[in-house]
Amino acid sequence: MKEKNSHTHHISQQFNTELDDIKTRMLEMGGLVEKQVADATNAFMSLDTGLAEEVKKGDKLVNALEVSIDEDCTIILARRQPAASDLRLVLSISKILSDLERMGDEASKVAESAIKLTELGGLPRSVLEIRHIGDHVAGMVRGSLDAFARFDIDLALEVAEEDKAVDLEYGTAMRSLVTYMIEDPRTISSVLQVMWALRSLERVGDHARNIAEHVIYLVKGANVRHVNIEEMAATVQDQS
Amino acid sequence: MKEKNSHTHHISQQFNTELDDIKTRMLEMGGLVEKQVADATNAFMSLDTGLAEEVKKGDKLVNALEVSIDEDCTIILARRQPAASDLRLVLSISKILSDLERMGDEASKVAESAIKLTELGGLPRSVLEIRHIGDHVAGMVRGSLDAFARFDIDLALEVAEEDKAVDLEYGTAMRSLVTYMIEDPRTISSVLQVMWALRSLERVGDHARNIAEHVIYLVKGANVRHVNIEEMAATVQDQS
Repeated sequence: MKEKNSHTHHISQQFNTELDDIKTRMLEMGGLVEKQVADATNAFMSLDTGLAEEVKKGDKLVNALEVSIDEDCTIILARRQPAASDLRLVLSISKILSDLERMGDEASKVAESAIKLTELGGLPRSVLEIRHIGDHVAGMVRGSLDAFARFDIDLALEVAEEDKAVDLEYGTAMRSLVTYMIEDPRTISSVLQVMWALRSLERVGDHARNIAEHVIYLVKGANVRHVNIEEMAATVQDQS
Repeated sequence: MKEKNSHTHHISQQFNTELDDIKTRMLEMGGLVEKQVADATNAFMSLDTGLAEEVKKGDKLVNALEVSIDEDCTIILARRQPAASDLRLVLSISKILSDLERMGDEASKVAESAIKLTELGGLPRSVLEIRHIGDHVAGMVRGSLDAFARFDIDLALEVAEEDKAVDLEYGTAMRSLVTYMIEDPRTISSVLQVMWALRSLERVGDHARNIAEHVIYLVKGANVRHVNIEEMAATVQDQS
């Protein structure tokens, strides 16, 4: 535990400022990505192609932020040669940036599917699955970023657990859509767009889980990638 | 250019060995991932569930390698505090590991689709698109790793260009599958498995392009993420 907050006690005030700066910028980028996911979901639900186009445009900013903040991470590594928890912090931020950027890509794909579905004339049936899973994963994005901001590993664990719930919801939604397609083959092209959008949202959940894993790594120094929830919980509860 | 091979001229022979070691291990992991992609493609084409199960099992090794090699990267950053091109090398390897790991996930998804398609009784129509795009992206994986091994930015650019070709092939294949589905709705569930597998293979191509971008960054020090092929070619050809 004593190492955990060491990056707040540097001899160099300037170094502290630099670390705080990349943290803040990453969280701002995260806020933007969360908004992209929510906007893409709304665009899909209301077949709002204007909003969908905005999401696609917004992805350019997400990409630019990733490159810019990651460059700052590299500069800090080169100039400050951080060790221990500072090194973990910078490396975690660099990896989280990559997950955020990919979430942005997925939001953009949802927006693209919204546009295509609109062109196809929409769907006679409502697509509540998109609303439901979209809201769910947007909440996970927010949770994973809050967990990072507060070094809150219990919240990080909750986010990872949510991902299992999303995967189940996704499976149920897909089966229902397949049934719908089979019953009314004229809807095949439209339902496919719903499926692509759902798949993208499900991946946003995967990336939120990745961020949660980075938070646990950051705080506990233990790698929890590719372990199951039970092992992850044991790591989080480990007091050593 | 003078900086490019500086990591081969260290005062510390031990440091050289460490850098060579993570490079070698990453390339070995890359070879395994390439094999996973090829095996998943073959399993899908021949509905070989035994081979598909092997691919799914093999993904655990891919995941373990990612964690292990990435830990070595962190240790090198902490102990050696590399600068300039050495720092870029270690950071690039860390990022390439992440792309390789995700390619492994996609290969595993292709294997899963192969199993599901087999359970559904296969498809009356051959799925040559899987063979074609599978071979194409496996070649891209190999090309991106060769480009890394030889610091060959021209080859890296070729890989990035191939990705555009794969995206076009993917679009054509998907349209043809939608048509097939509409003409024979009884095949919907089976064709969906082909679509998921194709989508996964297309993503393998995206990750190979990412690796190519990391190679260009490594050699030229210029970030070519999120730029179009023309800008990327200009960076590669820039003699400065």
